[in-house]
Amino acid sequence: MSLHAESVPAFRRTLKSLSQCLDIASKDAKERGYDVNVLLQSRLAPDQFNLTRNVQVACDTAKFVGVRLGGADAPKHEDGPATLDELQARIEEVRSFLSGADPAAFEQNGTEILTLMRGITMVGEDYLRQFAVPNFFFHASMSYAILRHNGVKVGKMDFLGDVSMTPPPQKA
Amino acid sequence: MSLHAESVPAFRRTLKSLSQCLDIASKDAKERGYDVNVLLQSRLAPDQFNLTRNVQVACDTAKFVGVRLGGADAPKHEDGPATLDELQARIEEVRSFLSGADPAAFEQNGTEILTLMRGITMVGEDYLRQFAVPNFFFHASMSYAILRHNGVKVGKMDFLGDVSMTPPPQKA
Repeated sequence: MSLHAESVPAFRRTLKSLSQCLDIASKDAKERGYDVNVLLQSRLAPDQFNLTRNVQVACDTAKFVGVRLGGADAPKHEDGPATLDELQARIEEVRSFLSGADPAAFEQNGTEILTLMRGITMVGEDYLRQFAVPNFFFHASMSYAILRHNGVKVGKMDFLGDVSMTPPPQKA
Repeated sequence: MSLHAESVPAFRRTLKSLSQCLDIASKDAKERGYDVNVLLQSRLAPDQFNLTRNVQVACDTAKFVGVRLGGADAPKHEDGPATLDELQARIEEVRSFLSGADPAAFEQNGTEILTLMRGITMVGEDYLRQFAVPNFFFHASMSYAILRHNGVKVGKMDFLGDVSMTPPPQKA
């Protein structure tokens, strides 16, 4: 298995993309003259998580992989309303935390039965591949979708971020 | 590495979820009395792919992993307008194609330099982890987001699909 290699770099890359998308949103708010908090409270449906919560859940999903598979103590974060700067700081803290994740711990915990929230148990590798990775990309994508729906000029290459293509990808 | 194990089951699971979300959409159209093609042509922004195209790209992204890493000949699919039944058939064909993917070929091609569309090259494992997996989840998530925004009653557990949790997850 290569549980660390298949997840941690992807989480770090996509969190960086998410941060850059939020930067574009911040610029858009200035240019179009609205409060960026309007975006943070936006959602695609009234019973969906807003942008803030989608960013927080994407961060937590990645962070708890570092805790449950990496066996490390993570920085604590409060949920609820947050400023754009607070969300950016949270993303950066999770990226930094994950950069210290131990690949050997991932392999070891991959075959263990892990206890998640509310007493739910999953085998480590199933937790990563069936829950954490899809859930992470889901909330990162919903964050992007909320920005996109509000006219923020983000494109898919902003979501994919730094990819090792030759020649390097061009932004549309 | 375990390139097959980290991707093919996830693609097959999420494609099945996508198919089930489209079933829910079809039922919603009947119940609320509108043409389901309205949903297929919906998008979150005027310059975004519509639902049909998002489903097609999710299918193609998964399929071409089976071609480029698995070294197999894939069923051919036309893009452009499609009915819901045609999209469902395409999803099923890709799921079936991927079920025959060869794990050994994935490992071998993971270290090869692959030539993608328009002469772009990537190392096999980078292609999978940096491009294909994020791109697949992106378009599957956008498909979900378009349904969600149109009031179709899909929830995140519909997106995550069958996960090996104990106790099994409950739909909200």
